[in-house]
Amino acid sequence: MSQAIDFYFDFSSPYGYLASEKIDDLAARHGRKVKWRPILLGVVFRQTGGAPLTSIPLKGAYSLHDFARSARFLDVPYEHPKRFPLSTQHAARAYYWLHDQDCAAARMFAHAVFRSLYTEGRDVSDMAVVLDIAAGQQVERSALAAALAGEVLKDRLKAECEAAIARGVFGSPYIVVDGEPFFGADRLPQIERWLASGGF
Amino acid sequence: MSQAIDFYFDFSSPYGYLASEKIDDLAARHGRKVKWRPILLGVVFRQTGGAPLTSIPLKGAYSLHDFARSARFLDVPYEHPKRFPLSTQHAARAYYWLHDQDCAAARMFAHAVFRSLYTEGRDVSDMAVVLDIAAGQQVERSALAAALAGEVLKDRLKAECEAAIARGVFGSPYIVVDGEPFFGADRLPQIERWLASGGF
Repeated sequence: MSQAIDFYFDFSSPYGYLASEKIDDLAARHGRKVKWRPILLGVVFRQTGGAPLTSIPLKGAYSLHDFARSARFLDVPYEHPKRFPLSTQHAARAYYWLHDQDCAAARMFAHAVFRSLYTEGRDVSDMAVVLDIAAGQQVERSALAAALAGEVLKDRLKAECEAAIARGVFGSPYIVVDGEPFFGADRLPQIERWLASGGF
Repeated sequence: MSQAIDFYFDFSSPYGYLASEKIDDLAARHGRKVKWRPILLGVVFRQTGGAPLTSIPLKGAYSLHDFARSARFLDVPYEHPKRFPLSTQHAARAYYWLHDQDCAAARMFAHAVFRSLYTEGRDVSDMAVVLDIAAGQQVERSALAAALAGEVLKDRLKAECEAAIARGVFGSPYIVVDGEPFFGADRLPQIERWLASGGF
């Protein structure tokens, strides 16, 4: 059995969302599974000096335009959220909590978070919204709320972010195929060729 | 006659080089010409707070890897130069001087600069190397040397950089098709579809 592909992303990353709509099908075409690993870009940027794209002079305005155009190019629905960028620790922690119980449910939840943010403009930085999204996926709201209030999940996400940085992750999406790193939704065609050819 | 495509780049930009090997053929497939416009990223970065990719923690190491892999993906020869990043004002000024006399000669010279840097590792920050490259393209060395020593060309390049920034250019390559901006060699497929469909 081939190794799973690692898919690192922040729920607040538009290019992460675009990749999330493509990566599983792409991997499946080559008999691969994908491990989804939400991280917090804020933590990463403290190491790299990075900043949210939309805050960068000139590049910010372009990025807003490119998010929407790249979505059309990839045939993915997209509406830029009014609240952006936004913090995503509750969503990321909820993902890992769910994942430890039911991997498939966590995947559905992650899709729901991304789509809530990028097609409905819901404020997923709000814990109540995260709980609503999870409840919509048949997750027991009170159990998740209790977990999100505790320290265990906070430590878990912190450890995930640290492990990602130690591996070289500096942005979202960051996808690792058999040790080969690819940064950006625009590397999907390279990933496709890499999987088809075993490297190039 | 359709409007020319504007191709902004810095000669020190590996992704600018990759785009330079593709953009003319891509444009020609859709009956378009390309205007090449070398700029200095150093001037742009003073406005945007940007930095050379290879100087950024984590992203730097990835970028070196991605330059070479993206070149293989696009089937373009590439060897990362020992001296990098490097200043390219002499090459950019020589380009505009040539361009005002002979557009086709300027295009050949620009290709020669990029290929000298990215396939032979020549130090194109050195004025003597720029003069050698130009001489190899049947340019009169002493006339170019005199022009490079004067103020007119310095002001010309400065004005080109300022005009580019005023237009929103924040990196290399930055390509404008009928007012639509595309940043990065990885946007070539979007440009191709844009030209084929008149937008999407």
